[in-house]
Amino acid sequence: MNHHQKAIKIQTTGKSFHDITAKVKSIVAESGINMGLCTLFIRHTSASLIIQENADPDVLKDLSNFFSKLVPEDSKSYIHDAEGSDDMPAHIRSVLTQTAQQIPIAQNRLMLGTWQGIYLWEHRDRSHHREVIIHINGV
Amino acid sequence: MNHHQKAIKIQTTGKSFHDITAKVKSIVAESGINMGLCTLFIRHTSASLIIQENADPDVLKDLSNFFSKLVPEDSKSYIHDAEGSDDMPAHIRSVLTQTAQQIPIAQNRLMLGTWQGIYLWEHRDRSHHREVIIHINGV
Amino acid sequence: MNHHQKAIKIQTTGKSFHDITAKVKSIVAESGINMGLCTLFIRHTSASLIIQENADPDVLKDLSNFFSKLVPEDSKSYIHDAEGSDDMPAHIRSVLTQTAQQIPIAQNRLMLGTWQGIYLWEHRDRSHHREVIIHINGV
Repeated sequence: MNHHQKAIKIQTTGKSFHDITAKVKSIVAESGINMGLCTLFIRHTSASLIIQENADPDVLKDLSNFFSKLVPEDSKSYIHDAEGSDDMPAHIRSVLTQTAQQIPIAQNRLMLGTWQGIYLWEHRDRSHHREVIIHINGV
Repeated sequence: MNHHQKAIKIQTTGKSFHDITAKVKSIVAESGINMGLCTLFIRHTSASLIIQENADPDVLKDLSNFFSKLVPEDSKSYIHDAEGSDDMPAHIRSVLTQTAQQIPIAQNRLMLGTWQGIYLWEHRDRSHHREVIIHINGV
Repeated sequence: MNHHQKAIKIQTTGKSFHDITAKVKSIVAESGINMGLCTLFIRHTSASLIIQENADPDVLKDLSNFFSKLVPEDSKSYIHDAEGSDDMPAHIRSVLTQTAQQIPIAQNRLMLGTWQGIYLWEHRDRSHHREVIIHINGV
């Protein structure tokens, strides 16, 4: 039985999706874990981790458009606006999505479905340094 | 220490909730794990895993109605529409809910609350074959 | 390798956020686990566990306001209303947020970011007794 842990750093480019699937796959391969669980955790409250379709990039555009309408950046709606009109909406988007994801591992590979990719979703307008912890445990 | 893994397959019947609690309970019982963690992961991006009330079936109907209004199937709203007007809304519903769930295990039983059931939520209109990985680790 | 489990009980005060970060930290410290994973699970379907900003309390007020608008307590909208007009909205809020959270542990400490706190979010109007299971595994 083993536990492995690695931090990865991603510099985001404003509101955007960053595909981290290949990075996570290589950390799983390095770990040597045959069967187990991979947990991802983002150490921020204005960016998320999501698992979504990796085939048609329009899916991510539509996701982005939907959330822009669902959580408007209208400063009159929010008390917390000292950090910019995109900050409170970013916190709400974070609550509506996920801070952590878990993916089982079998035969030293993530058991993602064919069309599943892992994305860091930046909710702020400006570029940020984001840290994601990859925790792997298994046998 | 042990890790157990099993895949279950569910044929859905269009937009619907499938109660998989009994199946998961029996896999936990078989595993022989006394104290640990059960992780569920769905290998798709247009269906979800949720934990919800198992008493009044109207709760699931209201959930379904709420999400139909929140994420309209209006093809004009989306760029990604090649797979049908229900496809992009299904991806959005998947992001707003969960791809994975974790439930602690004690005395070889899931520590669900009295009113908690585990549901696979199909977001597409047509029947689909869905695969859920049940990962159990503990002592 | 070790698995630790502890239940904590929180008496809520109607719709409110209860910061349980300090409690969870002390359970992690007691466990003696150096590197591993902390999983939190709430045994209810009308309250959630979220990870959010711990600095400006206005963030939580804005979250609360946003969800009140997103999920209206209008009894005409719901079939399930026998338990009060706040009950079905509470179930929907639970589905839109999280029943479980995972946080990696390193050097016997939760790897939360500087601004991340762990909150139990009560969605019902009246005070409730809520139970959260803290599961810790690692080395």
